[in-house]
Amino acid sequence: MSTVTGTTTTGTNTSSSILSIAPKRDLSTSTDVRRLALQHVNPNVRKAKYAVRGELAVKAEEYRVRLTEGDKSLPFDSVIFANIGNPQQLDQKPITFFRQVLSLLENPTLLEQPEVLKTAFGYQQDAVDRAQTLLQEVQSVGAYSHSQGAPAIRASVAKFIEERDGFPANPQDLFLCAGASSGVSTLLNVMCDSPNSGVLVPIPQYPLYTATLSLLDAQCVPYYLEEHKAWGTDIDAIRSSLQMAKAEGTDVRSIVVINPGNPTGASLSADDIKSVLDIAAEERLIVIADEVYQTNVFSGEFISFKKRLRQLQHEVPGKYDHVELASLHSVSKGMVGECGHRGGYFELVGFDPLVVEQIYKFVSIMLCPPVIGQCLVELMVNPPKPGQPSHDLYNKEYSGIRTGLHQRALALYEAFKRMDGVECQEPQGSMYLFPTITLPAKAIEAAHAANRAPDEFYCLRLLDATGVCVVPGSGFGQKANTLHFRTTFLAPGTAWVERIVKFHAEFMEEYK
Amino acid sequence: MSTVTGTTTTGTNTSSSILSIAPKRDLSTSTDVRRLALQHVNPNVRKAKYAVRGELAVKAEEYRVRLTEGDKSLPFDSVIFANIGNPQQLDQKPITFFRQVLSLLENPTLLEQPEVLKTAFGYQQDAVDRAQTLLQEVQSVGAYSHSQGAPAIRASVAKFIEERDGFPANPQDLFLCAGASSGVSTLLNVMCDSPNSGVLVPIPQYPLYTATLSLLDAQCVPYYLEEHKAWGTDIDAIRSSLQMAKAEGTDVRSIVVINPGNPTGASLSADDIKSVLDIAAEERLIVIADEVYQTNVFSGEFISFKKRLRQLQHEVPGKYDHVELASLHSVSKGMVGECGHRGGYFELVGFDPLVVEQIYKFVSIMLCPPVIGQCLVELMVNPPKPGQPSHDLYNKEYSGIRTGLHQRALALYEAFKRMDGVECQEPQGSMYLFPTITLPAKAIEAAHAANRAPDEFYCLRLLDATGVCVVPGSGFGQKANTLHFRTTFLAPGTAWVERIVKFHAEFMEEYK
Repeated sequence: MSTVTGTTTTGTNTSSSILSIAPKRDLSTSTDVRRLALQHVNPNVRKAKYAVRGELAVKAEEYRVRLTEGDKSLPFDSVIFANIGNPQQLDQKPITFFRQVLSLLENPTLLEQPEVLKTAFGYQQDAVDRAQTLLQEVQSVGAYSHSQGAPAIRASVAKFIEERDGFPANPQDLFLCAGASSGVSTLLNVMCDSPNSGVLVPIPQYPLYTATLSLLDAQCVPYYLEEHKAWGTDIDAIRSSLQMAKAEGTDVRSIVVINPGNPTGASLSADDIKSVLDIAAEERLIVIADEVYQTNVFSGEFISFKKRLRQLQHEVPGKYDHVELASLHSVSKGMVGECGHRGGYFELVGFDPLVVEQIYKFVSIMLCPPVIGQCLVELMVNPPKPGQPSHDLYNKEYSGIRTGLHQRALALYEAFKRMDGVECQEPQGSMYLFPTITLPAKAIEAAHAANRAPDEFYCLRLLDATGVCVVPGSGFGQKANTLHFRTTFLAPGTAWVERIVKFHAEFMEEYK
Repeated sequence: MSTVTGTTTTGTNTSSSILSIAPKRDLSTSTDVRRLALQHVNPNVRKAKYAVRGELAVKAEEYRVRLTEGDKSLPFDSVIFANIGNPQQLDQKPITFFRQVLSLLENPTLLEQPEVLKTAFGYQQDAVDRAQTLLQEVQSVGAYSHSQGAPAIRASVAKFIEERDGFPANPQDLFLCAGASSGVSTLLNVMCDSPNSGVLVPIPQYPLYTATLSLLDAQCVPYYLEEHKAWGTDIDAIRSSLQMAKAEGTDVRSIVVINPGNPTGASLSADDIKSVLDIAAEERLIVIADEVYQTNVFSGEFISFKKRLRQLQHEVPGKYDHVELASLHSVSKGMVGECGHRGGYFELVGFDPLVVEQIYKFVSIMLCPPVIGQCLVELMVNPPKPGQPSHDLYNKEYSGIRTGLHQRALALYEAFKRMDGVECQEPQGSMYLFPTITLPAKAIEAAHAANRAPDEFYCLRLLDATGVCVVPGSGFGQKANTLHFRTTFLAPGTAWVERIVKFHAEFMEEYK
């Protein structure tokens, strides 16, 4: 359903009926009479772009509504939302243990009859125990928590980080947040202090970064990833972007690294992470490590920036002591896939305590992250262990999701290989593929005639013809004269992939 | 637990051990070596103030932790968080029907055995039905929804508004949000376009408004409420503040009205609302009606701004057609009290569709409000009706909470009457009282000597002596040379009130 196209408010309708007497003059002035015409909107908001939920997504939702209302005029019978990593909108089932505990937190009276829970509904004792522990901490999931997140949940996250990295973590350095997006917004809000503040952002990137920098009227300093190396991070590209921005007078304060990467889940090697930390140490850049895909890795190994930083601080005393690192994680991705719950956290390493105070004040204005989302963060970082009653089912579900994601990624990759003018890097993880498309000159002309970027034109035609919604590469950034689109590999089955294959052949034929 | 005082990060600890060799020089430069020293933090963040969760709240939490750890050295045995409207942290129990439905949404497998739910756990058929309806809409509470909120939930909110006001409401004009705070932030972000943009804000106010305007580097244009008229809205005060700001060149774009009011729940009369709408129509101000306390009314009647606007649009054709109104509501307050779930909505009336598009884009960057919170909004606006199986219990719980709030408000009010130098307006609603305190000259001197505002000094002493945490009036704004504090009346029992009475007598005696 579209909320942004056309339909006027009741108030406007009232005035429309007046306007119908002398429509032309009044219509032209009607916008001016309002206090907030488009030209008065915050220019930073106006210039922000966010393609993941832009025009294509709105149109796809319109198609979906038409189909549910019985519209038979469309050339497809379902809409496939491959534009956004929204696992549970598609095939992915929530993990049973997580949802059992959350149901108990929402209705603690269920805890009064654990035997019934077990015999009738399959709850195990560890789910009951966990709910009781969490309730003791938060009192009620309907109460505000500490603005930084419930202390015991932060303690649990710290323990997880310690076990993952082999280095200590402090609950006081952790901020729970409403999904990683909210954490990124907080960090950028605090660290950008003028239109001259710059942040290095990988291209292609997740558009949250560019959009948030637009809102803050700060500079995005792009550095390009290496497509031919499966979208790896190119240290030279970072250095040259940085030097160029500095030469232009930009006060570059921070570097964002998405590791594993969005779009392809490429994991940085220990050496690559060291190179980024070298730049950070030498150039005094705050590192924002977006590590929300840390479990979505098909090949290679995830190494956290925190771990690598601590190793280097031990190996080379002095050099890295003052590197400031913020690393983010989320319940939205991975095998958890609970994005609707808006849970996440960031860890601060090496930040000035006076700055941490400012971050605390900033987040306190919004009071606290959703408490049930905080509890889900706790469950994610502290799942059932081997030997605990819920472990076998948890493990089976978790592995099943992982295998399914990998299989679908490969199926999509194989399909792209079969398509003329489409090239795709081998999937390494995350939830996305980001193929290059090479379009015929006539298609590019047609796009320009329609006043569209060529990749946008292609994606729009794909949606209209097949109901498959993907995002044009321009929404993430791409090198000049290249075209891409991003698709998730979350949708079940392969029939929708065949729709793309068929459309693509027809499109290429039409414009050859 | 404190997260902002002192404790260094592990990274800093590493460097501390190095620093211990030559501590003085290195300590003084250690901040400078970091990229983000306090002076580099966004100045808008630095200047923002948010007292509700400030120093006093942090200290109160420290006391709470000490008490739970068995510390016997404090002169009190419990901390009373009267600083924040957090009902379920204190005595208020969640409404059974709401939580039953939420538990089913979190674990839909429970729905497979409705008979067991009924016999063992007291779920009624309407709870089961509602969960099924909501699940059909959102698919999974773990999936992202439409950025504006799930369409069917918005339809339910629109129906509620229509029934409340007697005028149509359109789901497309509604935006669900993560608590009203998030909605206010969205609205101010979109409408403030320069440091010269101004917003009229009532004083005393909820500090969300001043803090958010600070973050946006926009102007708060204060207008004072009339304490002697139970903190009523004074139209002349609005006009004179507006004229003064305009004379200074401020581009005043909007007026915030908190109705019923925070702190005292004073409800605006139909005439007062008309006066505000007159100013809005004449001066072209966008009205932000913060109506989160609409059910917390002990005396008088709540009239929504939307209703009054529609009445006036019918009564006086033309004059009010282009008034832009945004009204907010929330699951956090009222008898629902589910602030930890971060649910709320705002309705836009008369906004330019092109501006609505910008609002949509802005909220889409954070993807969507928490889905379980959206479902709770639906339950709040569409509770069990008379004749439905869950209605009797719902009604009993709802009335019980309302009565309890009123009784505690009166008890606190009576206690204030007994205290020398304390004057308090009769409670009319909301969750707060905001008494004036008149302190002896010696107390004011002592405050200055301690480098504290006098009301802050008083509240700090109160906390140290009694464990009762309230917020100094300066956190909300108060007329020059007046002192206040804000306390909720949510805490159970009256023993804590007696702690205040006793402290106050001793404090007055000490500084007489």
